[in-house]
Amino acid sequence: MRRSIFTEEHDDFRRTMRSFIEAEVVPHHQEWYDAGLVDRSLYTKLGDLGVYGIEVPEEYGGAGIETFKFSAIMTEESARAGVTLGTSAVHLELCLPYLKKLATPEQMKRWMPGFISGEEMWAIAMTEPGAGSDLAGMQTTARRDGDSYVLNGAKTFITGGVLAGRVIVCARTSPPLENNRRHGISLFAVDTSSPGYEVGRKLDKIGLKTSDTAELSFTDVRVPATDLLGEENEGFSYLGQNLPQERLGIAVSAYAQAAAAIRFTKAYVEDRKVFGTTVASFQNTKFELASCQTEVDAAEAVIDRAIEAHDADELSPVDAASAKLFCTEVAGRVIDRCLQLHGGYGYMNEYPIARLYADTRVTRIYGGTSEVMKLIIAKSMGL
Amino acid sequence: MRRSIFTEEHDDFRRTMRSFIEAEVVPHHQEWYDAGLVDRSLYTKLGDLGVYGIEVPEEYGGAGIETFKFSAIMTEESARAGVTLGTSAVHLELCLPYLKKLATPEQMKRWMPGFISGEEMWAIAMTEPGAGSDLAGMQTTARRDGDSYVLNGAKTFITGGVLAGRVIVCARTSPPLENNRRHGISLFAVDTSSPGYEVGRKLDKIGLKTSDTAELSFTDVRVPATDLLGEENEGFSYLGQNLPQERLGIAVSAYAQAAAAIRFTKAYVEDRKVFGTTVASFQNTKFELASCQTEVDAAEAVIDRAIEAHDADELSPVDAASAKLFCTEVAGRVIDRCLQLHGGYGYMNEYPIARLYADTRVTRIYGGTSEVMKLIIAKSMGL
Amino acid sequence: MRRSIFTEEHDDFRRTMRSFIEAEVVPHHQEWYDAGLVDRSLYTKLGDLGVYGIEVPEEYGGAGIETFKFSAIMTEESARAGVTLGTSAVHLELCLPYLKKLATPEQMKRWMPGFISGEEMWAIAMTEPGAGSDLAGMQTTARRDGDSYVLNGAKTFITGGVLAGRVIVCARTSPPLENNRRHGISLFAVDTSSPGYEVGRKLDKIGLKTSDTAELSFTDVRVPATDLLGEENEGFSYLGQNLPQERLGIAVSAYAQAAAAIRFTKAYVEDRKVFGTTVASFQNTKFELASCQTEVDAAEAVIDRAIEAHDADELSPVDAASAKLFCTEVAGRVIDRCLQLHGGYGYMNEYPIARLYADTRVTRIYGGTSEVMKLIIAKSMGL
Amino acid sequence: MRRSIFTEEHDDFRRTMRSFIEAEVVPHHQEWYDAGLVDRSLYTKLGDLGVYGIEVPEEYGGAGIETFKFSAIMTEESARAGVTLGTSAVHLELCLPYLKKLATPEQMKRWMPGFISGEEMWAIAMTEPGAGSDLAGMQTTARRDGDSYVLNGAKTFITGGVLAGRVIVCARTSPPLENNRRHGISLFAVDTSSPGYEVGRKLDKIGLKTSDTAELSFTDVRVPATDLLGEENEGFSYLGQNLPQERLGIAVSAYAQAAAAIRFTKAYVEDRKVFGTTVASFQNTKFELASCQTEVDAAEAVIDRAIEAHDADELSPVDAASAKLFCTEVAGRVIDRCLQLHGGYGYMNEYPIARLYADTRVTRIYGGTSEVMKLIIAKSMGL
Repeated sequence: MRRSIFTEEHDDFRRTMRSFIEAEVVPHHQEWYDAGLVDRSLYTKLGDLGVYGIEVPEEYGGAGIETFKFSAIMTEESARAGVTLGTSAVHLELCLPYLKKLATPEQMKRWMPGFISGEEMWAIAMTEPGAGSDLAGMQTTARRDGDSYVLNGAKTFITGGVLAGRVIVCARTSPPLENNRRHGISLFAVDTSSPGYEVGRKLDKIGLKTSDTAELSFTDVRVPATDLLGEENEGFSYLGQNLPQERLGIAVSAYAQAAAAIRFTKAYVEDRKVFGTTVASFQNTKFELASCQTEVDAAEAVIDRAIEAHDADELSPVDAASAKLFCTEVAGRVIDRCLQLHGGYGYMNEYPIARLYADTRVTRIYGGTSEVMKLIIAKSMGL
Repeated sequence: MRRSIFTEEHDDFRRTMRSFIEAEVVPHHQEWYDAGLVDRSLYTKLGDLGVYGIEVPEEYGGAGIETFKFSAIMTEESARAGVTLGTSAVHLELCLPYLKKLATPEQMKRWMPGFISGEEMWAIAMTEPGAGSDLAGMQTTARRDGDSYVLNGAKTFITGGVLAGRVIVCARTSPPLENNRRHGISLFAVDTSSPGYEVGRKLDKIGLKTSDTAELSFTDVRVPATDLLGEENEGFSYLGQNLPQERLGIAVSAYAQAAAAIRFTKAYVEDRKVFGTTVASFQNTKFELASCQTEVDAAEAVIDRAIEAHDADELSPVDAASAKLFCTEVAGRVIDRCLQLHGGYGYMNEYPIARLYADTRVTRIYGGTSEVMKLIIAKSMGL
Repeated sequence: MRRSIFTEEHDDFRRTMRSFIEAEVVPHHQEWYDAGLVDRSLYTKLGDLGVYGIEVPEEYGGAGIETFKFSAIMTEESARAGVTLGTSAVHLELCLPYLKKLATPEQMKRWMPGFISGEEMWAIAMTEPGAGSDLAGMQTTARRDGDSYVLNGAKTFITGGVLAGRVIVCARTSPPLENNRRHGISLFAVDTSSPGYEVGRKLDKIGLKTSDTAELSFTDVRVPATDLLGEENEGFSYLGQNLPQERLGIAVSAYAQAAAAIRFTKAYVEDRKVFGTTVASFQNTKFELASCQTEVDAAEAVIDRAIEAHDADELSPVDAASAKLFCTEVAGRVIDRCLQLHGGYGYMNEYPIARLYADTRVTRIYGGTSEVMKLIIAKSMGL
Repeated sequence: MRRSIFTEEHDDFRRTMRSFIEAEVVPHHQEWYDAGLVDRSLYTKLGDLGVYGIEVPEEYGGAGIETFKFSAIMTEESARAGVTLGTSAVHLELCLPYLKKLATPEQMKRWMPGFISGEEMWAIAMTEPGAGSDLAGMQTTARRDGDSYVLNGAKTFITGGVLAGRVIVCARTSPPLENNRRHGISLFAVDTSSPGYEVGRKLDKIGLKTSDTAELSFTDVRVPATDLLGEENEGFSYLGQNLPQERLGIAVSAYAQAAAAIRFTKAYVEDRKVFGTTVASFQNTKFELASCQTEVDAAEAVIDRAIEAHDADELSPVDAASAKLFCTEVAGRVIDRCLQLHGGYGYMNEYPIARLYADTRVTRIYGGTSEVMKLIIAKSMGL
């Protein structure tokens, strides 16, 4: 169905992204895939293209456009080409909202230039070894000491953790209150070149091979008090505020992966000959792809409605949870079926469907597992 | 998510329908269920309420509003109450579009008063015993003889066939062309009181117990040439034109059934005690209902987008096929899971979930089976 | 795969049952279906055939064979023919084990002649309105008064409740112990012609139309103490002992329904023409049926293994739960897919697939819901 | 359920394998995983243990036992430990049957010593780039020239291709007959050190990281006529004969992976704390694992029945296809659900569930895709 959420301006941007990806990403992607992370230059080139500034307020050097649509287009176009833009989505969709909501004008002035240019990439460190989705249980601490905080602890599953120049770290600044486990957490924008800040192992994941995912450890890391984000001890509520956008982003990416899978598969089955005919000519192939397309159509309807709601500041946490749950499950099913239509080639990482298969699995887990989404939805139903 | 397609006018209409159903349908529904068809008076009451005239042009006594939204609201509200409005959807969503597109002003003037008042209910007779979805293979014939046609043949699965006053019958008026099997079919608006017109068995279906579904047979039925609908021999293309709306209507009804199933189930599990607690308190119950709600949210996004497209005259056949396929599969899954949460009561027809289970099964079949939808979608993908 | 659990003796019995069903059941089945219960004469004819005595010890007039295989063959053959044998399975698989384990020689001598001849059919009444699978919460009471008990209360979902001559009723004879809610329940073999014993509504179910399912109520029903089954207050443990066989029986019946569905569907698609060819010739049809057959093959492996274990007295509660859960889910999926291949005819009750669809739904519910099975299995895993 | 197919002798062997794996495989597995293939010494150690000789006839130095059970136990025990035995299954389950059926006594005497000792590992090369499951369409040729054949062509997806000392290569020795495309294919046991034999890229697969999978190319490779296996031109029928065992082996391995996944997951959820309790304590966890266990129970029933049939020489091609299709689909579903219960850790390759997820995907593809299995099954149903 014709999508009604995009204007001509968005279509122009889509064409720009498509060309950029064709020219600057596709030729290097295999190399980055083998290396396990993209080259830093990708980020500065994306910075030059201006994509990191679109949603940054004008007074800090950005275009000041409040919309998720450009970000969605970046996600869609990179999936379509079978590549990734490294951890751009973390930079843009996860970190920027925190900065826009919490950073002081002084902080914004300090940080935005590097943010927009792609010279200082951002990441966010919430999860700890052994705590998973239970953020209130975190063990990392930040003790006030003079005009700085002393950070100790460890984080894991930090997407972009290897290349990031600054990482938003959640840490306990006070013990939990008896009636509120969530009290006492604060956010810090930690400079990754600080003494005591260490990037541990790059984690060996099933997929997302071009996204560097790391463990981080902090040993008496001194964080200037001027790098505290928002109010001390109120960090947990900030996390809650940005989750809908994070989950919308994952929903969009799952949708885009599923749509891309169909595109790759269609090309494959039309080309591939077996028993003297093309795989595309089998009724099973047609039915499988039609069924996949139907699910992707539904995912598209879901994300388009959610993007509009988000741009109108009406996307509730439960709306985002529902969109994430739905789209990531669709992607899981669709990509599995599309891989199957590739036969043995589908199992080979040189085919994009294989990488999509490995990549998409995490979308049902990160940003809150499907189980957490169900808890949120059930609660909103009064159950 | 807040639905953005309805205005205040629609919300008013929804409240009106809800009251009407509570007062005029719910109290009689068990009786109609046992009888296997609604009482005729339901139709004249709905006529009095004005619902059959909403989309009828003003010059023929209607309100002249071109939108599917009121019809959708009727479907949603009856499903919500666990009842049906007999075969109103056949009258309104299937038959009226044919009349608006094909009937001459003379015909409209003749037919619309009874249509609007609900005194003459309409049905449509396409399928024949042994032909299923393959309309081009139909055997019913209409032979021109003077200023009338002589109709012979039989039809089956005619929803509303027992109470209908007029039935749009598809019949062969010419043999198929060698290069076009679809040529030679014509449509007639047949008066069901004509000699030779017989209503055969009321079919014993799994569900849809208040919708009379009949076999019809025609033995030398004389149909005046003035009751020919549209051009002779061009009937097949007319059928094609109205299929998107028919399928949209089925998609909406499947969505509405699934949404109603969740509502009934939520009430049931909150009320029902087992092992000293409510069924609602089990995590499995919460997760099942959350998962169902997520699918229904997606179906809502799909139908809302499709209704908007339809109202803008942009709903393509493949869009409608995709919406029908998706929503009917969602309904099948959701209602099955909701029934399961009822335990043994879910198997008893006095519980609305049991009737929904039986009713919804046909939505994956009528208006074109899921397999036919997949063929349409695959074709549109170039496969 | 060739089934290895049956000997020549079983094959002979299978042929006998097949002929009997063809001659004595098939011709009357539609009539019984419309009436909502079989004719009593079916039971006496089955009694004459000797099937009710196979597992009855020789000293009480039976053949004294300890095996589930004959019973399984009865189930398989009736499903294969698209019919039921009324509530024979309740009589044979649910009630007889209680009698063999609990009845005194005096009771056996009294009851077995009517049991074997089919003149006195048995049923069992466990579930109460509002209690579902939670048997320990039952409200029906039996108060000792002289040499009889006075029974008061109500039961629901009693399969065979309309035609039964004797019903095993579970009732509280003592209040639950503080540390054991299950204490205090006793079983009685209640003569259904006793004053105060009333058969309430025959319940209107989605399917199982030839099985009379009733509500029962007891108002000061005097039950002679000689009709107490087993020890007073120990009833709950007896129930537990027979559940594996009950669940095995349901697993077999679900398997048999699924196998029958494939058989009916294969015949249908080979016969049915559409678009100038048979439905069987479509690759989708082939793949759907192959996929269904594969699931039925697995169900067969499961029940054959379970029947052998049961005959060796090694079928544990968790084994039975696993077999029931698996086979009933297979049947649900397979029959739904087979119905779909019938198109519109699949929705008509005159086609056996439609009745199978309606019938099979309850197998995931009765004898303990799928959720209860999962609890049992999880517990056995140490979770 | 207690498995009835194993005797004490098998249980002893299972204990032996378990100890061997614990001592000789587990400590090195991460290293082999990172290297992308096992160390050759694993094979000679397995040879020393005697496992490669179990099914080899006594006159050639083996134990002469005709059963699949020891092989199944090897598969089960390695899956249980979260490791693989390299390409032992290819050596034992795929190659040995060809040799036993086709090799002359002279060939057996020549080859068996190295086969049994593990010093000469075997592989088999069927698939060609661009031909997939359509073996009759192969392009590799072997032209007779004096007392040798000259082999030219390429093969792909050759499991064990890097370390193999001898590879059974299928090649065209004559053009296909007009009425029989399958005629003209021959099998050769090619010495991998022959000039012109080249191992191409080791393929980068989603999983099976310790199985070296390679492309092979043959440029004028001289194969002595004494290395022809079986009759010239009859190769295709040989392939057919061994497929049931190959597919049984894949079914067993899929079953074993799924069973192992449950075992790893149970340990994980019991250990893992979240929101102040263990993941195991959530009802969702219990239900998910119970549901998985039920599917694995069914898979076990399927493979045990199939192994018995195979040992009795009664496993038909359709039986094997059904077992493979069923068990590999079960494994896909079960492992996906188990991974989900691990949350983010499930996506990390250091957890065995992540490796199982990546490994199991190919079981629905190799040895004939699920689609090919369905074709076989449908055909056997007369469709």
